[in-house]
Amino acid sequence: MRITAIYEKTVPIRSNIRNAYIDFSTMTASVVAVVTDAVRDGRPIVGYGFNSNGRYGAGGLLRERFIPRLLAAEPASLMNDAGDNLDPHRIWTVLMTGEKPGGHGERSVAVGVLDMAIWDAVAKIAQKPLYRLLAEQFGDGPVDDRVFVYAAGGYYQPGKGLEALRDEMRAYLDMGYRVVKMKIGGVDLAEDVRRVEAVIQVLDGDGGRLAVDANGRFDLPTATAYADALAPYRLFWYEEAGDPLDYALQAALSQYYPGPMATGENLFSHQDVRNLLRYGGMHPQHDYLQFDCALSYGVVEYLRTLSVLKEQGWSPRRVIPHGGHQLSLHLAAGLGLGGNESYPGVFQPFGGFADGYHIVDGYVRLPDTPGIGFEHKAALYALLKSVHE
Amino acid sequence: MRITAIYEKTVPIRSNIRNAYIDFSTMTASVVAVVTDAVRDGRPIVGYGFNSNGRYGAGGLLRERFIPRLLAAEPASLMNDAGDNLDPHRIWTVLMTGEKPGGHGERSVAVGVLDMAIWDAVAKIAQKPLYRLLAEQFGDGPVDDRVFVYAAGGYYQPGKGLEALRDEMRAYLDMGYRVVKMKIGGVDLAEDVRRVEAVIQVLDGDGGRLAVDANGRFDLPTATAYADALAPYRLFWYEEAGDPLDYALQAALSQYYPGPMATGENLFSHQDVRNLLRYGGMHPQHDYLQFDCALSYGVVEYLRTLSVLKEQGWSPRRVIPHGGHQLSLHLAAGLGLGGNESYPGVFQPFGGFADGYHIVDGYVRLPDTPGIGFEHKAALYALLKSVHE
Repeated sequence: MRITAIYEKTVPIRSNIRNAYIDFSTMTASVVAVVTDAVRDGRPIVGYGFNSNGRYGAGGLLRERFIPRLLAAEPASLMNDAGDNLDPHRIWTVLMTGEKPGGHGERSVAVGVLDMAIWDAVAKIAQKPLYRLLAEQFGDGPVDDRVFVYAAGGYYQPGKGLEALRDEMRAYLDMGYRVVKMKIGGVDLAEDVRRVEAVIQVLDGDGGRLAVDANGRFDLPTATAYADALAPYRLFWYEEAGDPLDYALQAALSQYYPGPMATGENLFSHQDVRNLLRYGGMHPQHDYLQFDCALSYGVVEYLRTLSVLKEQGWSPRRVIPHGGHQLSLHLAAGLGLGGNESYPGVFQPFGGFADGYHIVDGYVRLPDTPGIGFEHKAALYALLKSVHE
Repeated sequence: MRITAIYEKTVPIRSNIRNAYIDFSTMTASVVAVVTDAVRDGRPIVGYGFNSNGRYGAGGLLRERFIPRLLAAEPASLMNDAGDNLDPHRIWTVLMTGEKPGGHGERSVAVGVLDMAIWDAVAKIAQKPLYRLLAEQFGDGPVDDRVFVYAAGGYYQPGKGLEALRDEMRAYLDMGYRVVKMKIGGVDLAEDVRRVEAVIQVLDGDGGRLAVDANGRFDLPTATAYADALAPYRLFWYEEAGDPLDYALQAALSQYYPGPMATGENLFSHQDVRNLLRYGGMHPQHDYLQFDCALSYGVVEYLRTLSVLKEQGWSPRRVIPHGGHQLSLHLAAGLGLGGNESYPGVFQPFGGFADGYHIVDGYVRLPDTPGIGFEHKAALYALLKSVHE
């Protein structure tokens, strides 16, 4: 068995939305298709991968470094010991050959996209849904048959007022979500407080169903001013207040703010995660971690990250990944994470999960077909197929 | 005044050398030429930039994100207040528009390469050597008229024995260097000790003229075993023992090893540097920091990094950058760094400084012509010109 071809394409996931730090008007994603010579139903098995929003597509890196390395490798060096499937760990080692330590960004996306495609292919070859394969190989308990998801939205958009914000959130609740997230930090505190109160009205007055996200915009005085204003609402979480690498700011804020906090979507290696847990002063009892495998070297690295969590006394249940993709849903179900982000309204066709798998009471189920199950999301699958067909 | 065109090319800087972490057989660099409509001697002023070795060329990122952003900007938004030159700080802000915080790698190279070219152009337009311009704008003392440089070599190469290693080091001394560096960690400790002793023989028995570099290869037990073996030689420094982001390892080793240590070439932002200084337990009295502007968002970010050093009680004299390029030489001379790396034998035509500017007692002088002075290094200048002519 071997990889016969790898295709990649950069596609727009642009939108006119804006968070406190960037707009998404030129955002792109890389899509890859890894074609194998394993055959099911008369057709070669193909694994698909893509990166989630927030960092850009990695087309240049894929074409210049990572795809050539994989295609140049001796096929036997990419196989498992039994010789009956690809080995994602060995493939990861090949991908990272010639790469110095440190500097974890961009290339972490290129490797993440390829790793997603490899795991999709591996699970298809093994004829198992990926979450079951992950649970068998790396889990320490039964799989979850449904995964908590929350609806991430509440972006800043030109002309979007409080009523439009409430309508957006009502639509998420109508879809079956119980917890929603909105952006903060893109306007002044007083206006953000009005926005937060408007959304809490829609949530039957329950701030515990609302997460807010500052996207790393705040310095410590601003972050503490927001903490003062937000604390009375007893929110679901207060996310990424300061620069993602300013662990001292996070530690100060962790001491100051009484409620749950969340961060980690902009940490792309287990080494960076370890630093957050060592120095960020976060609370394993009630805080959340949001590392996104698609942006951070994929599942192989995510397993290392989960080991770091264990060493530092954190349960995987405290992890609710950024990115809203189906791979994180499999990680959650198979390895017992706390849930997954979801973008029901934006970043189409990447946002949301399998067609016809509705959100019920804030939880979603996974299709029980081999692989990650992109084939159950028609618009996404059409895009993925277009990369190689 | 405006930028009229930007050219980029990826070129090999491959070599059959190897450190403890990677080989350089497929290493590349990006070269850019920023053409302006300012004219000197009848020709448009062109700024040149390139990245130093160790991370790869950033051609994809330059073509897909950073060059288009710069060319799409309103020309007036890239100028200084006086309107008589480009403003590297405003250009930096344009380059980083749409970029989320965190994840500092790869794009830090793309921005670093462009920033180098911008400063070269700015100094040429101002008709000053860059180190004088930097000293005037950001320095707090007289410029240095010569800069300490050390010869970095001692790589692992197929078939290279102790005599070849000694010959290499003798050649550096013959060129005028007083301090040399060699790789460690690519073979076992006993063999590395033999290599270290062989080189110290050539240095008249003075280990204080030898730096060693593990390139982030060691775990703590290995790093301490090397520390035990190396301490008696009282080396110039012991560099990058462990993973560049493992600040706890560095802190443990900083307590354990009595001599000077060095690290930082794989930290690419002022946020990462701040974490090293906060958590790495390094000694401002005798340790060295090696941040390389060409890999880490350029001079604009380097000025922020130097501010972080000041806040944390470090003198710029403790900084001896990685990378061996002429831009760092200007930073050293203009802003009072401690010196610069040099690769007299490898990474040609990028290694070494201006033709005819010989190393004397381990120091080198800078040409006093406008810009960075690439024009004084014929082989490099021929390559740079080939990007746009």
